[in-house]
Amino acid sequence: MSVPVFERVALIGLGLIASSMAHAMRRAGLAGEITGHARSAETREIAREIGLVDRVCETAAEAAEGADLVVLCVPVGAMGAVAEEIAPMLKPGAVVSDVGSVKKAVIEAVAPHIPEGVHFIPAHPLAGTEHSGPRSGFAELFDNRWCLIVPANGDIDPDAVARLSALWEGMGAHVDVMDADHHDLVLAVTSHTPHLIAYTMVGVADDLRRVTDSEVIKYSAAGFRDFTRIAASDPTMWRDVFLTNKEATLEILGRFTEELFALQRAIRTGDGDHLHDYFTRTRAIRRGIIEAGQDTAAPDFGRGAARGDKTEPRK
Amino acid sequence: MSVPVFERVALIGLGLIASSMAHAMRRAGLAGEITGHARSAETREIAREIGLVDRVCETAAEAAEGADLVVLCVPVGAMGAVAEEIAPMLKPGAVVSDVGSVKKAVIEAVAPHIPEGVHFIPAHPLAGTEHSGPRSGFAELFDNRWCLIVPANGDIDPDAVARLSALWEGMGAHVDVMDADHHDLVLAVTSHTPHLIAYTMVGVADDLRRVTDSEVIKYSAAGFRDFTRIAASDPTMWRDVFLTNKEATLEILGRFTEELFALQRAIRTGDGDHLHDYFTRTRAIRRGIIEAGQDTAAPDFGRGAARGDKTEPRK
Repeated sequence: MSVPVFERVALIGLGLIASSMAHAMRRAGLAGEITGHARSAETREIAREIGLVDRVCETAAEAAEGADLVVLCVPVGAMGAVAEEIAPMLKPGAVVSDVGSVKKAVIEAVAPHIPEGVHFIPAHPLAGTEHSGPRSGFAELFDNRWCLIVPANGDIDPDAVARLSALWEGMGAHVDVMDADHHDLVLAVTSHTPHLIAYTMVGVADDLRRVTDSEVIKYSAAGFRDFTRIAASDPTMWRDVFLTNKEATLEILGRFTEELFALQRAIRTGDGDHLHDYFTRTRAIRRGIIEAGQDTAAPDFGRGAARGDKTEPRK
Repeated sequence: MSVPVFERVALIGLGLIASSMAHAMRRAGLAGEITGHARSAETREIAREIGLVDRVCETAAEAAEGADLVVLCVPVGAMGAVAEEIAPMLKPGAVVSDVGSVKKAVIEAVAPHIPEGVHFIPAHPLAGTEHSGPRSGFAELFDNRWCLIVPANGDIDPDAVARLSALWEGMGAHVDVMDADHHDLVLAVTSHTPHLIAYTMVGVADDLRRVTDSEVIKYSAAGFRDFTRIAASDPTMWRDVFLTNKEATLEILGRFTEELFALQRAIRTGDGDHLHDYFTRTRAIRRGIIEAGQDTAAPDFGRGAARGDKTEPRK
């Protein structure tokens, strides 16, 4: 067993990310002891039943007491209250981090509660599935994914950052550092706005489903099915993302609507060249993603039950 | 070897669908001989090189001559011209079908050219990947997917429909019959509008990429990556889809924009309840899709290189 990166780690909130962290930390022996707390009694009961962490605590404060690292894994809107609750129990030299999808709002909510001598280092692992809850975690979730570390202010402790980075790398992730404003804009483009759009489209289909019985589901083909997967994500987490990354999301939504209207006009006026040029351009960004190692070129969408078949295209 | 369903099958156009049909027909011994034609000399050359069909022909007319089944596998906008070209070569009792994603426009373009005594039975297999071209096909593409048969008019030959259905079932698909108007509306919801939206979002990100270097690609996480996969689909095919299913696509786009603006307003005004209710509702349609067997519950998006790992969630 390797030497633990942190002797005691406390996970506050026991959903998909926290439960995956517990599995990933255990896989690599990164923590001496893992404590955990979830607000819901049912979640705590499940966590105990499946032995998710070493000790499930009744309060966040109890879980955080004496911890070398406390990771806030609650929805972004709940971070401030949790930080306030655990603040008196934090020991000097401890690291407090989080896994929120939005960083500016988390820093604003959490930083004021962090005592002198405690290192607050926000982070955001770019990983997830459409499932949630303590049973949804698995050790491989972060493998080869990015974890962005977003220092809250200038005077952060380099040693604390190095240890948090080592933890994430030990869980399989690649680590990068980014400032909070930039993080929130990049994520608005790559994650937040796409999720909102997927939610919207699935909602539209849901309305139509009442008209056409179950055909929308039955014939759910390429395109729409991927949207439903996205739109099945945790509602509370996503509500908080949009409420707290309002500015960047609204900016990107504005650009999106502008482009969509241009394409809509091209459809209405029959401007095939505009459509073809646009669709050709978007193909290139896909190639960039494959080259960047963020996805494989294996054919996938529209494959339903064959997802994961690893049927490779003939090249 | 089973008895072929059609003695001679001609595939006009040799892209993803036609090449997958060739593999799938061979897998099950459904055709005695398969001829093929593609407009591009390069495509014909590749088809010969990989032995995609039994005989690659220089013209569509030559491929269709004497065929018992001719399947038009060209972009929707090219269907009419191909039908006109092959019409004189069609033998009495032959079946002409297609695989277009839009049905009303195909029927309008093709039906006038079909000679007396030839059975025109449009069809649409709900299957695809983001790849295109003669090398992209594979035999499993249609397994457990739907193929919608859309009779062009009332007086279709039941025996011809039965044989075309048997062919698609032999290639692994489930067959259903639907009228053209309804088909085009259902597909506008489940496929066409989602594709347009994905193209739009990727285009917006592409603009931003120039500002933020390659970060949009590097940190392409859950949500956006699925969009890029969709937006990498064949530009010509999709241009034709939107130009020919204009009415239904514009109708669904109108509903989409309405819903999106309502969510946008909820974000702007901080109406968390509206967002949470909406996101909870969309989760249900996802469950419906899984229950309908159109996808698995395995966690997927955001998993990048692990796509296909079959890491099952702990249940």
